[in-house]
Amino acid sequence: MHRIKKAACIGGGVIGGGWAARFLLSGHDVAVYDPHPECKRLVETVLANAARAYGRLTMAPLPKPGTLTFAASLQEAVADTQWVQESVPERLDLKQRVLAEIDAAAPEGAIIGSSTSGLLPSDLQRDMRRPERFFVAHPFNPVYLVPLVELVGGKKTSPEAIARAEKLLAEIGMKGVAIEHEIEAFVADRLMEALWREALWLVNDGVATVTEIDDIMRYGFGLRWAQMGLFQTYRIAGGEAGMRHFLHQFGPALKWPWTKLMDVPDLTEDLINRIADQSDAQAGVLTIRDLERIRDDNLVAILQALKAGNDGAGWGAGALLKDFEARLQAEAPAPEVDLSGPLRLVETTVGPAWIDYNGHMTEHRYLQLFGDTTDALLRLIGVDADYVAKGASYYTVETHIRHLGEAKLGERLHTTCQVVSADDKRLHVFHTIRNTESAQIVATAEQMLLHVDTEAGKSTPAPRTVLDRLEPIVRAHAALEEPDGFGRKVGEGRE
Amino acid sequence: MHRIKKAACIGGGVIGGGWAARFLLSGHDVAVYDPHPECKRLVETVLANAARAYGRLTMAPLPKPGTLTFAASLQEAVADTQWVQESVPERLDLKQRVLAEIDAAAPEGAIIGSSTSGLLPSDLQRDMRRPERFFVAHPFNPVYLVPLVELVGGKKTSPEAIARAEKLLAEIGMKGVAIEHEIEAFVADRLMEALWREALWLVNDGVATVTEIDDIMRYGFGLRWAQMGLFQTYRIAGGEAGMRHFLHQFGPALKWPWTKLMDVPDLTEDLINRIADQSDAQAGVLTIRDLERIRDDNLVAILQALKAGNDGAGWGAGALLKDFEARLQAEAPAPEVDLSGPLRLVETTVGPAWIDYNGHMTEHRYLQLFGDTTDALLRLIGVDADYVAKGASYYTVETHIRHLGEAKLGERLHTTCQVVSADDKRLHVFHTIRNTESAQIVATAEQMLLHVDTEAGKSTPAPRTVLDRLEPIVRAHAALEEPDGFGRKVGEGRE
Repeated sequence: MHRIKKAACIGGGVIGGGWAARFLLSGHDVAVYDPHPECKRLVETVLANAARAYGRLTMAPLPKPGTLTFAASLQEAVADTQWVQESVPERLDLKQRVLAEIDAAAPEGAIIGSSTSGLLPSDLQRDMRRPERFFVAHPFNPVYLVPLVELVGGKKTSPEAIARAEKLLAEIGMKGVAIEHEIEAFVADRLMEALWREALWLVNDGVATVTEIDDIMRYGFGLRWAQMGLFQTYRIAGGEAGMRHFLHQFGPALKWPWTKLMDVPDLTEDLINRIADQSDAQAGVLTIRDLERIRDDNLVAILQALKAGNDGAGWGAGALLKDFEARLQAEAPAPEVDLSGPLRLVETTVGPAWIDYNGHMTEHRYLQLFGDTTDALLRLIGVDADYVAKGASYYTVETHIRHLGEAKLGERLHTTCQVVSADDKRLHVFHTIRNTESAQIVATAEQMLLHVDTEAGKSTPAPRTVLDRLEPIVRAHAALEEPDGFGRKVGEGRE
Repeated sequence: MHRIKKAACIGGGVIGGGWAARFLLSGHDVAVYDPHPECKRLVETVLANAARAYGRLTMAPLPKPGTLTFAASLQEAVADTQWVQESVPERLDLKQRVLAEIDAAAPEGAIIGSSTSGLLPSDLQRDMRRPERFFVAHPFNPVYLVPLVELVGGKKTSPEAIARAEKLLAEIGMKGVAIEHEIEAFVADRLMEALWREALWLVNDGVATVTEIDDIMRYGFGLRWAQMGLFQTYRIAGGEAGMRHFLHQFGPALKWPWTKLMDVPDLTEDLINRIADQSDAQAGVLTIRDLERIRDDNLVAILQALKAGNDGAGWGAGALLKDFEARLQAEAPAPEVDLSGPLRLVETTVGPAWIDYNGHMTEHRYLQLFGDTTDALLRLIGVDADYVAKGASYYTVETHIRHLGEAKLGERLHTTCQVVSADDKRLHVFHTIRNTESAQIVATAEQMLLHVDTEAGKSTPAPRTVLDRLEPIVRAHAALEEPDGFGRKVGEGRE
């Protein structure tokens, strides 16, 4: 099929390492080849950053990471792969040579991408025997968090290769945007370059400092562009009159001699020093490592914010994340139902949106996690989205929570559920949240649920199909000890 | 001192209305003057959007909104104000005339800002008798959510006016960035314009569509620019070698003949149609209203995401929001305490982020509302953010929730709290959520809290200052009946 089992990363710098992280953390094996003596250290640094960020990015259970190997040769690395990604330095002759080598050694079924940020795919594929399977796949730093990949084919690239790349990118949580015509620097870098030139002029002319320009972006239009880009933002600005109106109204301003874009500022030592000094002052005590960590945390939080957007359906990069999580969820092996003890139902990591100002998981998130646990139990007995859509469900009528420990940012948690008793209407459960590493209990919840006819809003017996799945669990759990803290009322027996 | 009591908005379109919303929702009175017959309707539409978004933006108690009046004349509007903001159409002669009128009528102590997006302040202040108090204050749509305001003085503007504007903007949750030299279009629009021109070329040349360009921004570099802008992002790209290295390495690419920026595409009918058609296809079934709502929700979520950034200290626009909330918190009047019954503590409306697919409030949001009620009680007895920052707090150890009704989208709810008992360490409360319209009970929660030393992680007696505030409530509530459902354990007495 089109699934990736193994990918090769030829070139193991920050970009190659970022690709390796994406593949590995999505469960695919990766072979890296880079003759650079520091390659292993560099890739492992990127991987550590990526593992930290990625674990916090998704609430879904991450698959078992793939296996990373450092190959002794390019040929060894590409053997038995479905995707080879080239990320060597940005020199046409070097890339042409490396790509021809990859082409000669890669299995027939593999597709080949280049991370170039500007060279034309038609030039890059010149010396390949099977150029139809080659394309530019231009990613953005940090590759393990920013989902965009520009996909650009050359004259000899087949549409199938691009289509396959789009599918495979979705598998690793990325968004391939196929660009119709190859031009140097493609689309993203052209747009960034335009703004970058103007920014350099503004600093050069003493209109604004580096910090002021960054503030203008991050307190201003950057907040809009992160979610809607340029045209959709202007569409709203045009109001009900629409995009045509907007263009007619604002178009003439383009002719005003505002910008200095027709010219390029000389990067004199003086200008370089000014920018570098302002940048140092802006960063203050923050090192590059600090900034990377802050950036990654912000990216995670923005992506999660966009995941909740559009009334929970997800928006833009957040909708992509939602789809990715759904795929992980669907592909996660069905929970092994071991009836010899409480059912282990939910695995999660405490994300940045879940913590309060003290760095602890916020109170109501415990109930969210207990609710997810109940949902997982209900799915197990056939009460899933389809079932609910037909007009019946279990509603929680009562919950008793005990807080016995704390959960902190980044910690892995899991929940278990013991079914204490059930009849045709009632379902009495006892959930436990544990820290997965220490196995310590963080909190427990005792819940009573009632099976209801959701349209009538009244309790009603559950059907046989549900009870047939529930009863074996009830019978097995009848042999378990009553959980500690069961049947408590608030404040009971507390000194 | 420099506080705003009343602001005037001269010109009441989307921008003037956005300013009015910022002032009103921060508790300041606003007079709007605009001879346009639709003015009232337009401003009220913006205000409704703003009230919805703003209520969700801050967790802090919002002050009582200021009073909005529609003045019959410019002179009436500016009387007795501390800030006059001009937002009339973008024509120099019109703005000069209106600003001269404002200058003649405004109180001596008022400062005067213009919302112009490009005209020079030196030109605008030409006919004013007191030009030193005038500056450009250029905001960004939606003004009630995007914090940036470019502050640009003209030749006759005093530095004190700019400094005062920066302070007053902070009061309404905005970020003034003072720009050193006046140039047409200032800084933000220059940067946006540069990218906009390049984007128009890319569409014109058939390289990419409107949707592809937006996707490239919002799945790619937009996610970086929303939090760090341009230079700090490139600083990271330069790695440990720093900004000088980055400039030396990437500078030469600026000279490559990549972009078409030296020229401007003709906005022919053909190009306008192409862009408008692509924009229609991109929006699909989403109306401008839908897009506005989605944009506002995303902005709220991104701002909140950035508030949690930098290990909870806040980052960029999120740090600004955090400061703003702290100020609101500090300035909030103490709630009126009526000890003759349970304390009425929280008022809220069920928002779209709080409901599940059935249109009912999601289970864990009940606990969030109970938690907010506990927080309100704690603030009442002096356990506020400052208190917690000093290393002590009350932690919830146990909660018992009963679900007795349902809460649906848009319904108003309020909560009450009965303090059942307390000693120097323990605090035992019983909360009730009611539908405000029907007065029906929706849910109750019984909670036990312990006073803790948060650093040691151990319970410790509350100090006298707290107990002195708590005890009168306990004594008064001792006279109340035990609430129905108090002391229940899960499933007790249920048939």
